[in-house]
Formats: sequence, C-alpha cells, structure tokens
Amino acid sequence: MSADKRPEDKDIYAAGLQVRRDMFGMAGADEQIEAATDFTRPLQDVVTRFCFGETWNRPCLDRKMRSMLTIALLTALGKQNQVRVHVRAAIQNGVSKDEIREVLMHCLVYAGLPAAVDSFATSADVLKQMGLE
Amino acid sequence: MSADKRPEDKDIYAAGLQVRRDMFGMAGADEQIEAATDFTRPLQDVVTRFCFGETWNRPCLDRKMRSMLTIALLTALGKQNQVRVHVRAAIQNGVSKDEIREVLMHCLVYAGLPAAVDSFATSADVLKQMGLE
Amino acid sequence: MSADKRPEDKDIYAAGLQVRRDMFGMAGADEQIEAATDFTRPLQDVVTRFCFGETWNRPCLDRKMRSMLTIALLTALGKQNQVRVHVRAAIQNGVSKDEIREVLMHCLVYAGLPAAVDSFATSADVLKQMGLE
Amino acid sequence: MSADKRPEDKDIYAAGLQVRRDMFGMAGADEQIEAATDFTRPLQDVVTRFCFGETWNRPCLDRKMRSMLTIALLTALGKQNQVRVHVRAAIQNGVSKDEIREVLMHCLVYAGLPAAVDSFATSADVLKQMGLE
Amino acid sequence: MSADKRPEDKDIYAAGLQVRRDMFGMAGADEQIEAATDFTRPLQDVVTRFCFGETWNRPCLDRKMRSMLTIALLTALGKQNQVRVHVRAAIQNGVSKDEIREVLMHCLVYAGLPAAVDSFATSADVLKQMGLE
Amino acid sequence: MSADKRPEDKDIYAAGLQVRRDMFGMAGADEQIEAATDFTRPLQDVVTRFCFGETWNRPCLDRKMRSMLTIALLTALGKQNQVRVHVRAAIQNGVSKDEIREVLMHCLVYAGLPAAVDSFATSADVLKQMGLE
Repeated sequence: MSADKRPEDKDIYAAGLQVRRDMFGMAGADEQIEAATDFTRPLQDVVTRFCFGETWNRPCLDRKMRSMLTIALLTALGKQNQVRVHVRAAIQNGVSKDEIREVLMHCLVYAGLPAAVDSFATSADVLKQMGLE
Repeated sequence: MSADKRPEDKDIYAAGLQVRRDMFGMAGADEQIEAATDFTRPLQDVVTRFCFGETWNRPCLDRKMRSMLTIALLTALGKQNQVRVHVRAAIQNGVSKDEIREVLMHCLVYAGLPAAVDSFATSADVLKQMGLE
Repeated sequence: MSADKRPEDKDIYAAGLQVRRDMFGMAGADEQIEAATDFTRPLQDVVTRFCFGETWNRPCLDRKMRSMLTIALLTALGKQNQVRVHVRAAIQNGVSKDEIREVLMHCLVYAGLPAAVDSFATSADVLKQMGLE
Repeated sequence: MSADKRPEDKDIYAAGLQVRRDMFGMAGADEQIEAATDFTRPLQDVVTRFCFGETWNRPCLDRKMRSMLTIALLTALGKQNQVRVHVRAAIQNGVSKDEIREVLMHCLVYAGLPAAVDSFATSADVLKQMGLE
Repeated sequence: MSADKRPEDKDIYAAGLQVRRDMFGMAGADEQIEAATDFTRPLQDVVTRFCFGETWNRPCLDRKMRSMLTIALLTALGKQNQVRVHVRAAIQNGVSKDEIREVLMHCLVYAGLPAAVDSFATSADVLKQMGLE
Repeated sequence: MSADKRPEDKDIYAAGLQVRRDMFGMAGADEQIEAATDFTRPLQDVVTRFCFGETWNRPCLDRKMRSMLTIALLTALGKQNQVRVHVRAAIQNGVSKDEIREVLMHCLVYAGLPAAVDSFATSADVLKQMGLE
C-alpha cells in the first residue's frame, strides 16, 4: 500500500475497533480503551490502529489463518498472557480445538518442547473455561 | 495417537522421506541423508522421522498451512538459514508470494520489526533466485 | 541410528515411561498420561516417546549430565515452570544442590543476569520444599 | 579498565552495595544479602560487585540513562519480575512516568507488541502501587 | 494520542522519510523506498510511517536517546544486520563511541556475554569503516 | 564467596588469562587482549576476569562439564560465532565428538530443531577443520 492509497486514519481506527470487538468482545475492546490512562493510551491506540486496523485487515490471509499464525508466534515468543486471549479469539475466528492442538504440535518441533508444553497448558485451561475441554 | 495405534516406524520413516523429497527435492532429502556422517546421522534421522514423517503428516493442517506456520515460527526464532529453505519449500507447497509477504507483515507486529526485516530480506533473495521477484 | 536398527516403537514408549517414573514419580508419569485428553494426548505421547524414550536414553551422557544440561537450557529459554520440575528431577538424578548452583552461575555469564535470577528463585523455592534449602 | 588500575575489590563491593541501597532501599540491598544462603550467596555477590559495583558505576551513562536501557533490555528479554523492580528503581533514578511510557513504545517496534503489552501491564501496576498511576 | 488528534497520515509519512534521510542518508531512505517491489513495499511503508514517522517522532526521548535504546534492544534480540546500520545512525544522532561502548557493557550484564560479544564485533567493524576506531 | 574471601583481583585476572590460553591458544587469549582498543578493552577485561577467571574457575563443575553446558547454552541462544570457538575449546577440554553430538541432540528437544540444525552445521564444520570429521 503506498501512503496515498491508504484508507483514512479514522477509518483504520474504526475498522480496528470492530476487529477487536469481534474477536475479544466489549471487554477486550471498548472497555480496555475506556480504561486507558495517559500512560497506556498510546499502547491501546497502536493495538487498535496498527495491529487490528491495519495488519489484521490486510489482504490474502483471513482471520482464522491469522489466529493460527498468532498462536504459533506467541508460543515461539513465550508470551502466555497473550496465548490465553488469542486461544479464545481463535475459537471465535473459527479455529477448531483440533486445529489449535495441531498448531501447537507443529510449534513443538520448531520452538522446542518447553514452549509447546507451556502453550498446551494455557490452551487447555482456556478451552476448559469455555466448556470445550 | 496412542503408542499402539501408530504406523510402523519404517512407514513413518518412508513417509517422512517422501515429504522431504516433495518439499526440498533430492538435494534436501536423499543427498543430505547419504552425506550424513556418524556425527550428523542422528539429526538427519530425527528430521526424517519426527519432523517430516510424524509432525508434517499429522491431521487437520495441510502442507500449505504448515509452511506458513513454519515461516512465522522461524521468523520469531530468527533462524534465517531455515527461512531460506522453507520459503522455497512454501512455494512448492502452494503458498503464493503474496501470502508469504502477508505472513511476514503479520510477524512484524508480534515478533518485532527487526525479525520481519531479516525474513523479508532472506525471502526476497530466495524469490529472486526462483525468478519470482 | 538408522531406522532399521532402532528398538521397536513400543519398547521406546515403555523405556520413556520408566524414565518419567524414575525422574518425576507417578504424578509426573502415569497420572499425567491418564489425565490426558484428546487435546493433550499427542503432547504426552511425544514427551514419553521422543523426549524421554528416545533422547534421554541416548548414549554418552548419563541422566545426571542430562539434568544439568536441561536446567541450563531451560534457564536460557526462560521456562520457569519446567525449571521447577527439572530441579526436583535433577536431585533425583544425583545432581547435588551445589552443582545446581554452579550450573546457574555458569548460565549467568552466557544467558544474562535476569535469566539466572529467575532460575535461582525457582530453584531455591523447590529446594526449600524438598527440605534441602 | 586494565586490571591494575581497577579500584580495590572491597571498594567495588561497597560501591555496589550503595547503588543497591539507593535504587531498591534496604529491602533490595542489605536484607537480600543477609537472607542469602550458601545456595544464593554467589548470585548476590555478583549482583553487588559485577552488576551494580562495576557496571552501573561505569562512566558516560548516568543512572537515569541506565534505568531506561535496563527497562528496554528486560522488555526484550521478557523478564517481568525484573521489569517490576526496575520500574520502581527507574522512578528513584529520576526517570519520569512519561519517559517510561516512551521507552516501552520504542520497545514495541523492535521487540514486538506482546513484549510491550507485558511490560506496560507490569509498569502500570507498579506505578499504581507507587501512587503515580 | 487519541485517533482524532494525530497528524494527517501524509504528514507522518513525510516526517518519517525525513528521519530516515537524516539518520541513514539517501541510500537508507529514498533509494530503499524506490527499490521496493510489490513484495517489500508494505514493509518499507511501515518502516517509514510507523517506525520513523510515528515512533521515533514521539515526545520525551530525543534521537540520541532512542539510538542508544535501539542498540540495546537489537543486542538483546541478536539482530546484527540492524546493529550495523544503527551504530552508524547513532553516531549521526550524536552518540559518542564511548557511549556506544557503555551501552554494550550494560547489555552484557542483562543479555549475556555472547550477545555483547557479537554487538562489540559488529560495532567495532562499523566504527573502523567510519574512521572512528 | 563473600567479598573478603575472594582471591586478589590480579590473581583472578592471571587465572582467567591461563584458562583462555589453555582453551583457545595464544590467538584467543594474549593476541586478542593485545589487539584490544579503548573501545573493546572493557569487554576483553570482563571476559578474562569475570567469565574465565571467576566463573570457569568456580568449584563443582570441571572444564569438560562447563564446555558441554556452554555449547548447550549457546545453541539455545543461537550464538553461532561462539558455538564455533567453543566446539574447538570443548575438544581441548576433553569433550569427545560423540559427546558434542549428544549435547546437540539433547538441545534439539528443548531449544527446537532449527537451533540444533544450526549448531550441528557449525560443529561439523569446526570438527572437519580439526580433522575430526
């Protein structure tokens, strides 16, 4: 995308907010944004605009695919707080429990067993809370 | 998979060898295995059996999907030697150039800009060698 | 090991189960395996067969040596949940408290002070629970 | 510094102890050192002498600058236990709340969004406890 | 920054391009952007707008400070290709050779000796090319 | 070690220099130190005193054991430049080629396949240069 062809900034913000609502509900979207302080507002702004408004709305990969990539990336990076929210969002985006399992089994080979063990534990816990495990 | 339901070990080995041939050609399969020494043979064996025979042949995710996950994982882990071979294999597995670009743009958000910059440089170089860039 | 010389798959599974029992007791072996669901069973299977059945039973390095390597690797990777279980297993495998301390002091130089600080805190806590600190 | 020009070892220790007291109070200095066991004493010794006595007292960068670098490094390394103590110490060293926010926004680009999200959450919690957020 | 108070998108792009020119010269700015293909253009666009237009132009930390943070982050992340370009840019931004050395000595404690050794080697090489070492 | 019981600083330096000579020859010890500039001298000083003088001379683990731990740590950290020098030093410290292979096979499980593949390639190359592969 060249700079002059991009959607208006406010449209990107609105689009990102919608993705957040769809994936995380009001608690992970409007409520987080309203609770932001001067300290956390720039972060929330980047999450809404750059992460969800721009990147998650880019072409070629649908939300389901992006959810699986995100779980793999977070597993390699060892970010369990965010594995937690993204497993829930992945189900919302149409990823099945079996597909999450297979993403993690694939991670095991590349990111190592301990990374996979941590993400399996987190995911199983989330799935249980959702009544799926 | 419980232990007693798994395919015979020799079948897993043969299946893994076939995946390696399909994805990397003879140079990345038979030739590497024949060139193995006492020092590198156990590694080659795990690559053939565990990585490609078992994991890449697991259910739910096809090879195209696994290629995209692998590129994302290798980008987060910073393993450029293997980004190189897996970009080539991804094209072989039906991933388009645009899809590779979008996987890397997605990685940028989660693994950081420098990780994405490195994988973009490696991928562009491989695609150029393949006459695709 | 070439594919045709490997032990039968069921023997590797049995050997891995025994290593798990020896190192982690029934709670970290049979009980974990019995508690496995469709979601976690493939992970448990790889842990038993590939990690403990194959790798921990490979030649040249005894269990004590492998315990020390494992603690170093988990410290570099920042996997505190698994430092926790492997410090306990290390004592079981004959690693002394002083040797664990020295492994962590060695990690400090290579993996950085914060990685060592985290593993010292986890290890001291485990050793205290075991009545050794 | 060549070996013969360095301050006496006991002076480095005393200087490091003073930096610890200034940055973390008695609880993060004398009390930690007194609570050290045979297991943790070598770690405490390296923290006092090498980390704070030698490195934090090196020339060119003042404590405020080193605090900001430390928060950035700990964010990239994902060491939240230590982000926690170093955010508090950073305030003590004259880093403002706004400067901490900007360090983390800078980290977001290079270390990725999840690393920044974790450090923002930890920092906001510490600042709240200090009555600054 | 709330979404409605941000500068126009085209102004952010122009500002980012100027930062790139100032820090890396035409070769690291206009020439890279002109050489971009469909594959690499979205990356170049994020570098110009998000990295340099938005983040490097944020308040509280000047370019010199951001250069030092960037070298620390890249050292912790092990991204030597980018240590290379950012050491050169740091000198441009007013960071002295002695300050670079001290940033790396500080990294040594937190990111470990091997990370520091790699960045020292890269930095010494760049400084030599610049006639400063 | 409490501060007052430590050997004199100049003795630690001399001891570290001897370890460097034993493990890396004059090229990796005296020659590197003599080639140090104002920029790299503080690094060389920490390598000699803290890494080799203090840590490698600590009790409980001999040099052979420390070599194996170091190769494992460098593999997990992805530091191939230093895997290169430490494989050579490991042979010097009495680690056999088979033991290096087994350390790397152990790393494969914990740090992931790509980390092991990189270290196998580096190690095989070093061993070949030494006439051992």
